[in-house]
Amino acid sequence: MNEHTPSVNRRNFIKKTSLLTLGALGATGVMAAPHLQPLPKFSQDSDVNIFGPKEGYTPQIGTLVSMMNWMRMVILSPVKDMSVSDLDYLVDDDANSIGAMLMHLAATERFYQIHTFENKSWGDWSKEDSKKWSVASGLGEKARNEIKGRPFDYYLEEMTQVRDFTLAEFKNRDDDWLMSIDANFPWGPTNNYCKWFHVCEHESNHNGQFKFIKSRIA
Amino acid sequence: MNEHTPSVNRRNFIKKTSLLTLGALGATGVMAAPHLQPLPKFSQDSDVNIFGPKEGYTPQIGTLVSMMNWMRMVILSPVKDMSVSDLDYLVDDDANSIGAMLMHLAATERFYQIHTFENKSWGDWSKEDSKKWSVASGLGEKARNEIKGRPFDYYLEEMTQVRDFTLAEFKNRDDDWLMSIDANFPWGPTNNYCKWFHVCEHESNHNGQFKFIKSRIA
Repeated sequence: MNEHTPSVNRRNFIKKTSLLTLGALGATGVMAAPHLQPLPKFSQDSDVNIFGPKEGYTPQIGTLVSMMNWMRMVILSPVKDMSVSDLDYLVDDDANSIGAMLMHLAATERFYQIHTFENKSWGDWSKEDSKKWSVASGLGEKARNEIKGRPFDYYLEEMTQVRDFTLAEFKNRDDDWLMSIDANFPWGPTNNYCKWFHVCEHESNHNGQFKFIKSRIA
Repeated sequence: MNEHTPSVNRRNFIKKTSLLTLGALGATGVMAAPHLQPLPKFSQDSDVNIFGPKEGYTPQIGTLVSMMNWMRMVILSPVKDMSVSDLDYLVDDDANSIGAMLMHLAATERFYQIHTFENKSWGDWSKEDSKKWSVASGLGEKARNEIKGRPFDYYLEEMTQVRDFTLAEFKNRDDDWLMSIDANFPWGPTNNYCKWFHVCEHESNHNGQFKFIKSRIA
């Protein structure tokens, strides 16, 4: 993977761009594919749309980080300007609010941190972590009752604090750790790459619900 | 990445497993995290939950394929036993049916094939591809009117035919292609890894809607 360090890539990429952008996208492309609307530059990373190894991480962990950064930018885009009442909106009596689901994403990531960084069994959380995250993790009625009345920045801060710890821990780990197998996970033998990809795609799963709810807020 | 070929990995993984499964998950873990319910072995790949390089693909493409295989297994799980009326169910007048969204996922992947494998501008599709995929790509009223009355196997066959072509084309490409930049994409300079990751996470986005709709089918 050494030939894929960002600095070297940049040069390789530029050379290729002249060929690859023969198929450059135009405005018609955007209209033809609504889900391809340009995304706001929510991330600080100017290369946010360019996946691959990242400085400070081993190659596969850096590539996973590029996915997690991009996904986080994408899911915040439909909700970042929402009011408290939008974030609390319940599309029906059984629905989860967008605010509760944002906290749920932070809770899920925190539980995967404890599980994969501390090798704790799923559910073996400290009293402090259980108290802070269990309601958001479970969603449903308890979350409808307890997670509301907060502005977007509250959820963003909680999500960002958890994410910053994930990235700091990733910097201390390597691709062998990412590839290492847990033979006894509920969904079958799996590795840390699969577990952390799930943390990432799980954000997209709820983003599909954010967009459904957003389009129905009275 | 050569030390991460599956055969070598298997041995490394086994050695690590004894350490890593100190934090093995129990039934309580499943209950504590409903989204961690064991998934059906829908895929033919016995290593479906183990991400990393795959035989027949360059290392990063193989890792992307492991993500796409896993994601496809996950999104088919809530819908694979649905009746025609479930697949056609509209949760409200503006909703997309699960059947139309399954076709939409195949359409999105087909359009990314043409764009990234043939270097065609977005929207520069053949008459045949436009006729077959444009309604599913656009969803909304046209899709509500035209995409219905089909059993699950119809959608699965369409999705699988498209996916098989993606995998065949991936076998003829390498990690330099996956990392290559398109400077003019609507969401900004991006590479094929980011575009194909989007095809993958886009399935999770709609899976969040599948599960919302499924829980509300009368």
